[in-house]
Amino acid sequence: MELPEKAQVRFRARYSETDQMGIVYHANYLAWFEMARTELCAVRGVRYRDIEEQDHLLLTVVEAHCRYVAPARYDDEVIAEARLAFSHSRMIGFAYEIRNAATSQLLVSGETKHVFITPDGRPARVPRKYFDLFGIPAPIGVPADD
Amino acid sequence: MELPEKAQVRFRARYSETDQMGIVYHANYLAWFEMARTELCAVRGVRYRDIEEQDHLLLTVVEAHCRYVAPARYDDEVIAEARLAFSHSRMIGFAYEIRNAATSQLLVSGETKHVFITPDGRPARVPRKYFDLFGIPAPIGVPADD
Amino acid sequence: MELPEKAQVRFRARYSETDQMGIVYHANYLAWFEMARTELCAVRGVRYRDIEEQDHLLLTVVEAHCRYVAPARYDDEVIAEARLAFSHSRMIGFAYEIRNAATSQLLVSGETKHVFITPDGRPARVPRKYFDLFGIPAPIGVPADD
Amino acid sequence: MELPEKAQVRFRARYSETDQMGIVYHANYLAWFEMARTELCAVRGVRYRDIEEQDHLLLTVVEAHCRYVAPARYDDEVIAEARLAFSHSRMIGFAYEIRNAATSQLLVSGETKHVFITPDGRPARVPRKYFDLFGIPAPIGVPADD
Repeated sequence: MELPEKAQVRFRARYSETDQMGIVYHANYLAWFEMARTELCAVRGVRYRDIEEQDHLLLTVVEAHCRYVAPARYDDEVIAEARLAFSHSRMIGFAYEIRNAATSQLLVSGETKHVFITPDGRPARVPRKYFDLFGIPAPIGVPADD
Repeated sequence: MELPEKAQVRFRARYSETDQMGIVYHANYLAWFEMARTELCAVRGVRYRDIEEQDHLLLTVVEAHCRYVAPARYDDEVIAEARLAFSHSRMIGFAYEIRNAATSQLLVSGETKHVFITPDGRPARVPRKYFDLFGIPAPIGVPADD
Repeated sequence: MELPEKAQVRFRARYSETDQMGIVYHANYLAWFEMARTELCAVRGVRYRDIEEQDHLLLTVVEAHCRYVAPARYDDEVIAEARLAFSHSRMIGFAYEIRNAATSQLLVSGETKHVFITPDGRPARVPRKYFDLFGIPAPIGVPADD
Repeated sequence: MELPEKAQVRFRARYSETDQMGIVYHANYLAWFEMARTELCAVRGVRYRDIEEQDHLLLTVVEAHCRYVAPARYDDEVIAEARLAFSHSRMIGFAYEIRNAATSQLLVSGETKHVFITPDGRPARVPRKYFDLFGIPAPIGVPADD
């Protein structure tokens, strides 16, 4: 049973997301990445909110990178896509593409890296039950950190 | 010993707070109200974060009202002022004015109403130790709700 | 030919929209109101972005009012609904309801009032071609301001 | 006459900037970078808003990179510092550090790259009058893009 490699969300850019340059403010794409990341977890069988609520683990961002190719504008329909970029028991990487839904033009690409922490901020290993979700090889398989 | 009736914070409007109309997006003034509210608690002797952390009580917003008179623009220095509007043991009201710091022109005025809730969302009375902070008459004095 | 009285948008609350209280930050509902307002214009036949781009008029907010009944939480599916509350040639009022899509529980209700201004900030009358859009009686019919 | 190499802004993290993890949402640091960038331009003699208003040029972000070391929390006082990382006539790079003001602990570091564009989105060279501002060698000196 193969889990989906990618997930997409489709929505319109909000007026509140624009800035006085007349385009979507560059920080907002990180929130769009997060929407696609939430959806990727969902289509792979886990609601991200359940990880926080049931396992009391937080998937915190340790690095983010965005390349801005073309702007999204108010009321543009966009598609945000996330896929797993890499994973091991201590770190998970996602890659993203934001496209204009009408033209398929690439607007923004990026990556984020995440680690699990406990509510008091200590690093935690990915629980075994989420190995499938995050594509981590089961038995040994903990590659060196990048 | 009189507690201050008002408190002000002074800061510059951020590029991220503008929208494509070239002015500060109207929802952001609610965050500015909150900054002035935090400062009012501080000058009256209580850090709002301590109420959440030590007493496990949340001061949740139940109503907000804004009147937009003139816009703030990127890099404008503004002053946000908060004062207690009313208070009793179950509800606290604040009033706000946002002004352009250079011209003193009124930009936005507004009010918010708040109630205390427990972390699981149940309403709570204002703890006695915060009666001074919120200007609630000490002994009996619980006026009817508005 | 009747124009629709109401319009709805349906979407999920974003992680970025929550605050440390664990619920959607209260200012964000104003952005949700705006999404429903955009949709209401669209289903009544006008893209709001075209009013800005083609007529060089801005529909600026002069007043906003929110009542917070129950919180939206991360990943909750919500429905934001807008309807015309009143209109005349100098001011347009919208009313809103945000509901939890799964339970239909009312979360937030509110109203906004808007006036048209020119790009340099001067008040403008609603152009005749938008009378239908905003439900303004055609020939004379300019009631006194509220 | 040496222009300052760095600039700092000092402010408190807002409640609105937190998320349900109880820390400042990761996208908000990009807005903090922008505040420090605005200040760096100011201390080097140019208000960024004047570049937009007078020269009708926009300094758009083409790349952003953040490393998250430790979280900022509500009401923490923080210092955001920007410095010029590199510059030539077609691209300008800034580097940033966000620190906790009380402890000097590094919270976030990052970089952004920017190009000038015209209001209709075409790339533009940095105007000669801003060479000093952005530390671009005057006469020839246009290194190859990175």
